Amino acid sequence: YGLDIEDGDIIVITSKILSVALGRLYDLNSVKPSFLARLLSRFFKEDARVIELILREGEPIGVIPVLKIERLLHLFERYSVSNEQRRKALARAPYLFLVKTKYLILTDAGLDFSNVPPGYCTLPPKDPDEVAKEIMLEIQRRTGRKVAVIITDTEFEISRFGSRDIAIGCVGITPVSKKFGAPDLYKKPKFGGVDLIADAIASMAGLLFGQTAESTPVVIIKGLNIPRSHEGIKDVSYLRINRAMIRVILFLILLETLKLKLLLSLARLFGKYK
Amino acid sequence: YGLDIEDGDIIVITSKILSVALGRLYDLNSVKPSFLARLLSRFFKEDARVIELILREGEPIGVIPVLKIERLLHLFERYSVSNEQRRKALARAPYLFLVKTKYLILTDAGLDFSNVPPGYCTLPPKDPDEVAKEIMLEIQRRTGRKVAVIITDTEFEISRFGSRDIAIGCVGITPVSKKFGAPDLYKKPKFGGVDLIADAIASMAGLLFGQTAESTPVVIIKGLNIPRSHEGIKDVSYLRINRAMIRVILFLILLETLKLKLLLSLARLFGKYK
Repeated sequence: YGLDIEDGDIIVITSKILSVALGRLYDLNSVKPSFLARLLSRFFKEDARVIELILREGEPIGVIPVLKIERLLHLFERYSVSNEQRRKALARAPYLFLVKTKYLILTDAGLDFSNVPPGYCTLPPKDPDEVAKEIMLEIQRRTGRKVAVIITDTEFEISRFGSRDIAIGCVGITPVSKKFGAPDLYKKPKFGGVDLIADAIASMAGLLFGQTAESTPVVIIKGLNIPRSHEGIKDVSYLRINRAMIRVILFLILLETLKLKLLLSLARLFGKYK
Repeated sequence: YGLDIEDGDIIVITSKILSVALGRLYDLNSVKPSFLARLLSRFFKEDARVIELILREGEPIGVIPVLKIERLLHLFERYSVSNEQRRKALARAPYLFLVKTKYLILTDAGLDFSNVPPGYCTLPPKDPDEVAKEIMLEIQRRTGRKVAVIITDTEFEISRFGSRDIAIGCVGITPVSKKFGAPDLYKKPKFGGVDLIADAIASMAGLLFGQTAESTPVVIIKGLNIPRSHEGIKDVSYLRINRAMIRVILFLILLETLKLKLLLSLARLFGKYK
């Protein structure tokens, strides 16, 4: 540890290993469910102790009935190792809750059963940006090197069927580039330039965590020149946008989409659209 | 070219450079808008020639009124190089259309003005999987090496404010791992294992395209051991799921979310929820 760390390295760490280190590994037998957890447990057929842990982390804002969707549509069939294993995995997690934690929106608040003993589960660090900062300072104290630290977790991707690693905490690099409107090669203002840098690094590291050996918890990235910054992931999270704002945005999108559909139907009616 | 290519390398190529090579660079002055394009142009205040090119690519299924959202909420302020450049960039693209092309859903069908001369724009290859395959075969013919090829494009990420590179075409690697339900370290069936491999590689390459020199169009990745496959991105795209299925899924999610909200309100009413 610290053997070949150089200035400017980016240390990418899975939240899983940090959960264990930070005492965020829970024995379900030691969890006492509240009234609300038992109520939700009855209606969503999930272990009340699991729901209790989720509720302690944040506020559930949505539910995805994974098992029901699967039963109706056989959506997971193509992506499973076997029918039997698929049934077992889905039976253990019939619903996924979308949970707004203090800094992020995570499915099941990031609660995870994988690669921990049966009856145990982990939750990601409470404040991943802060944990990243502590690790960075500790590395600096021990080795004298100035590094960036990214903490990752595996999350479902809404726009595709599948998951990838995202950054849930970071320090020492710019998590998102702020170059909207920057001049392109022809000096025209660019529509873009808001690149999710920390997420891109996290998803590549996720590939290395997963592919080389299922239990690699740390990846060191060298020679990648990313601007330094004191921002964390929470500074660029959607949750900076308040709920009223999100409603306005969704309403505007809906309105314009209806306008589009109306115009398309009109054009079809007059035979002007192939 | 072909100098240090080895078996198993992954060649990642931006669609931009391929657009130019494949004659997908358009001079707007040579585009004659149809009736529908002119109709939409009037209602969405976008250049009718731009809309015409988008309509030729696929079917618009939604609209995001970027400029209206910005005017109301100043959402881009934090991410822009300057107020003036932001205004200029947004004025040129007041709306973003979500377009279902033959194989993918892309904003503005992938139409892009950046880094091409004023008055010109590019569209991504029509069948990116097929183009990836042709490039792979050409490399094999010239160098005798068996490589994988990924074609990328920059897209907005729905779950975060920002964009990243995704794979729009690929050949020679498994685009998505199919290990749902695979046993974890403790032999329990894993809820997960559907990793978006091609997207992860694309987003990391995107960082190298963008950061080292704004005009790097190709990244060669060595030593990454990904299972081989003949699948392309279109085989794992959401569009494999038909529209009726998507409606069922959205309906089920909505239903369960309403159930959740009702239960949370009930618990609050009885003072059982902090």
